Amino acid sequence: MSSEFGFIERLKTLFESVGDKNIEGIGDDCAIIPLDKAGEQLMVVTTDLLTEGVHFLREAIAPEILGRKSLAVNLSDVAAMGARPFATLLSIALPPECTGEWADRFANGYRQLSGEHNVALIGGDTTSSKGAVSISVTAIGLVGAGAIKRRSGAQSGDRIMVAGVLGESVAGLRDVLAGHYNTPAALTHHNPTPQVAEGIWFGTQQAVHSMIDLSDGLASDLRHILELSGVGARVDLEAIPAVGSVEDALTGGEDYKLLLTVAPECAQRVQAEFRAKFGGELYEIGEITESDNPRIEWFSGGKRVEKEWSGYVHF
Amino acid sequence: MSSEFGFIERLKTLFESVGDKNIEGIGDDCAIIPLDKAGEQLMVVTTDLLTEGVHFLREAIAPEILGRKSLAVNLSDVAAMGARPFATLLSIALPPECTGEWADRFANGYRQLSGEHNVALIGGDTTSSKGAVSISVTAIGLVGAGAIKRRSGAQSGDRIMVAGVLGESVAGLRDVLAGHYNTPAALTHHNPTPQVAEGIWFGTQQAVHSMIDLSDGLASDLRHILELSGVGARVDLEAIPAVGSVEDALTGGEDYKLLLTVAPECAQRVQAEFRAKFGGELYEIGEITESDNPRIEWFSGGKRVEKEWSGYVHF
Repeated sequence: MSSEFGFIERLKTLFESVGDKNIEGIGDDCAIIPLDKAGEQLMVVTTDLLTEGVHFLREAIAPEILGRKSLAVNLSDVAAMGARPFATLLSIALPPECTGEWADRFANGYRQLSGEHNVALIGGDTTSSKGAVSISVTAIGLVGAGAIKRRSGAQSGDRIMVAGVLGESVAGLRDVLAGHYNTPAALTHHNPTPQVAEGIWFGTQQAVHSMIDLSDGLASDLRHILELSGVGARVDLEAIPAVGSVEDALTGGEDYKLLLTVAPECAQRVQAEFRAKFGGELYEIGEITESDNPRIEWFSGGKRVEKEWSGYVHF
Repeated sequence: MSSEFGFIERLKTLFESVGDKNIEGIGDDCAIIPLDKAGEQLMVVTTDLLTEGVHFLREAIAPEILGRKSLAVNLSDVAAMGARPFATLLSIALPPECTGEWADRFANGYRQLSGEHNVALIGGDTTSSKGAVSISVTAIGLVGAGAIKRRSGAQSGDRIMVAGVLGESVAGLRDVLAGHYNTPAALTHHNPTPQVAEGIWFGTQQAVHSMIDLSDGLASDLRHILELSGVGARVDLEAIPAVGSVEDALTGGEDYKLLLTVAPECAQRVQAEFRAKFGGELYEIGEITESDNPRIEWFSGGKRVEKEWSGYVHF
């Protein structure tokens, strides 16, 4: 879920008094619906809309890859809750030139990534479009109440960790905008890998107190955790696993790596087990601090860096 | 869920081997997800995409009314399963001129109808658009296994019934296309009333064997019931509650009235109770027949009418 024009926040306020109070709605990566009276089994739901000319250029991305990406960004939101995605719905508006081979290739890519995670396609809608391709995906997942991770769970002292390297996606976006559609970075931008197994595993770890997926950039997404948890953070710029510049890693967006906070006494164990299980690195980049406002203090070489970074804006 | 270009059918085939076999996916008004091992509690999910220039003309419809309609067509799909809608997700792509007052008015209309049915808004996504407004809604409902109604349940001998009058919506569409945006028929077209309470009540009636909402027109939607139930039908053209021509009632689409089949021995009781409960009429228009193919035999004045009608096509 994103929040361009602040419209989603306005909707959140408008709907505060409507519906079942046991549902946790707008505000996290997914909504949370209790499936039993005890609230032991939870369903999580998320939706993302991808629009041609805003989120992708049709000439720059193979339809199969766009099919994968449309699903991947939603699976990433489910994974960020510690949940297992099991079903999606796909709605797509297609201009006349896309209803044949293009649509089939899109479907094949969507099917391929669905198969990799055993996620069913349980519904959808197709319509014609006068212009742009528009794709809306809703993803549904399951998680136990003991395993769910929220943005709001971070505690002072938690170590802040990121489950992979950052900044390659925005470098790829720059390649795409320069007309270079087939660079390795462009492929990373177009074909992100949602950390589904990683998210489910983090769900099993009591020491993981909060989680979010990095869609808008570290500077912006970490702030969401701080706001909802009522804490601050200090981040060591030199510890950030940046592929290119630190700037790209902080503000680039669309990396779709998981950002989490971990109880300090368990940080090393979680890192070691993650490495053993997934082969990759779980990078510690900073610490949650007590603070009345969701402030991030940036450090480099042990010294404060007085700078503000903001999130990612789509082209 | 609709099926322009046959794309949804292709997706259905492509996804047959993926995911949990206990989920009933593409094919009915909603997908069905069992919430417990016994399959006693069911969740139903549906999604619909509305695109400017295809499903509506922005200059012809007030944003509040479009907000209501975007939700109404989804609530109607949930009602057609006999289920109670409780939550929706809303994704919307907005061109720059729609992000301010227009969006607020749209939200107010969506909120108003949500409040009438106590349906929470639990998630969504907003993005900019280079041109058309595009709206995707996902609706979620709950129903017990004993109350759910499928398209596939019709039995030979069942009486075919429709829970309201037909054909006004397409008359309104013609008004809109002629530039008359404010006629009573145009308002009916723009502001359909989903039969939520009616659908839930039909769910409680064992005698109701199958149900669908009339979105594509009676001729087309009844055929969906016949195909999935493996039966035929005979319909008395003179019994159809047509506001205008029978043609409009059969092929007009977007009436969003419930079409159902009822055990013959209970038909009169269900009609009488419906009338007492809802004030409106439940019209008997024909009968389900034994047939190897999903054929509809049309009658008028007791005589066969050799004619074929097909469904509704959006402008």
